[in-house]
Amino acid sequence: MSAVTILAITNLPEIKPGNDLLAYFLRCEPALQKGDILVVTQKVISKAENRLVRLDSVEPGPEAREIATRWDKDPRLVELVLRESAELLRQDRGVLISRTQHGFVCANAGIDLSNVDGGSTACLLPLDCDLSARRLAEGLEQALGFAVPVIISDSFGRPWRLGITNVALGSFGLKPLLDLRGTEDAAGLEMKATVIALADTLAASTELVVGKTTGYGASIIRGYSYTPDQQAGVRQTIRPMADWFFS
Amino acid sequence: MSAVTILAITNLPEIKPGNDLLAYFLRCEPALQKGDILVVTQKVISKAENRLVRLDSVEPGPEAREIATRWDKDPRLVELVLRESAELLRQDRGVLISRTQHGFVCANAGIDLSNVDGGSTACLLPLDCDLSARRLAEGLEQALGFAVPVIISDSFGRPWRLGITNVALGSFGLKPLLDLRGTEDAAGLEMKATVIALADTLAASTELVVGKTTGYGASIIRGYSYTPDQQAGVRQTIRPMADWFFS
Repeated sequence: MSAVTILAITNLPEIKPGNDLLAYFLRCEPALQKGDILVVTQKVISKAENRLVRLDSVEPGPEAREIATRWDKDPRLVELVLRESAELLRQDRGVLISRTQHGFVCANAGIDLSNVDGGSTACLLPLDCDLSARRLAEGLEQALGFAVPVIISDSFGRPWRLGITNVALGSFGLKPLLDLRGTEDAAGLEMKATVIALADTLAASTELVVGKTTGYGASIIRGYSYTPDQQAGVRQTIRPMADWFFS
Repeated sequence: MSAVTILAITNLPEIKPGNDLLAYFLRCEPALQKGDILVVTQKVISKAENRLVRLDSVEPGPEAREIATRWDKDPRLVELVLRESAELLRQDRGVLISRTQHGFVCANAGIDLSNVDGGSTACLLPLDCDLSARRLAEGLEQALGFAVPVIISDSFGRPWRLGITNVALGSFGLKPLLDLRGTEDAAGLEMKATVIALADTLAASTELVVGKTTGYGASIIRGYSYTPDQQAGVRQTIRPMADWFFS
């Protein structure tokens, strides 16, 4: 392929818990076409799935209180971070970095206070991001009569570079990893270690139209010739802990 | 902005040391337009700048020999990795991860054996990637009469996710970090910690048209409204070591 277009979906309303996302995407602008990939930000999914927690309702435990005191943080937020984490990898200079229950390594277990009811409500990651993507993709295919792969995106920091980039938290309908090992590169030399993180790359590209300030919560990637896959998900993109070089 | 297009440059020839890249990009297909961003893969730049080293010409030292023996690697390649590295962070299960002289953290100091004369030649990263981008961007502006920001891309692995994604090694002509701190998000809540790694995001998106197997070495991003900057470079995207959480 030689041209790919990324289009913001411009008519997605502010999402409330219980909203039927499928209905919104069936009448989105621009309309979904055959061959399109739909990328939805995590916050849209989390709101629709009511992964919202009022901080008032959270009772912090002793560990959360201790961490919060040490770094001058809200103990109720720290309590939520601990609950969403399988392991706290770092608490350093006020930053909490953990491995989430899903296996993602990120700050604050992916919990965000911004953009939800003025900050008093925490927005947690979806429970099963691949499943969320699958539900939406299956609904779209049934209604439209053609498959539309779905990716759920979020923005993560990186350990040795500044700024955040989008990654994929969930996907359905396409291969999230493009394994080129054993194929030949343009010079005819076998490529030994090239696996493209395709779901992450697709998610990353959408930041160009779904900026944090635009308020757009979803986008369409048009013109990319993906490999369909009804089994794979972003779960496969998580590096097994046995293969970690940094922990 | 609501639509961004990524276009492969389809007529870039195989690059040889000393080739005049500017001349190629002045007659590239599609032609550069006002507002475009040009993204060139590291290998194109490295070849033009003759950052190629025949392995035959490399005399490995004692440290390289020791590491090579331990992991069953080519001692000449290990010698080059050590020369290009400021610090070797990990040697584990045959993988060498270092901080390069530029400050990038990556495998094999970014050295690649694939796609160069059948594997007997190593391709090193450019000496100063921001400067390489600047030279090309300044040449383009002088010839075309309008500015074209230039990004140099490469593919890196990530510590906790599988597969590689593109990052920016060098840039000129635009702000590589989009600092949204202090601005308001769509709900009117101030964003506290949002800096978008824009150069990396732009680089990442181009993998969708400049796949490893296509052989395309450069691409154009059209329709993205960037913030011009004649001073900044990817250098600013490198996280200072004092701010590392993982080392």
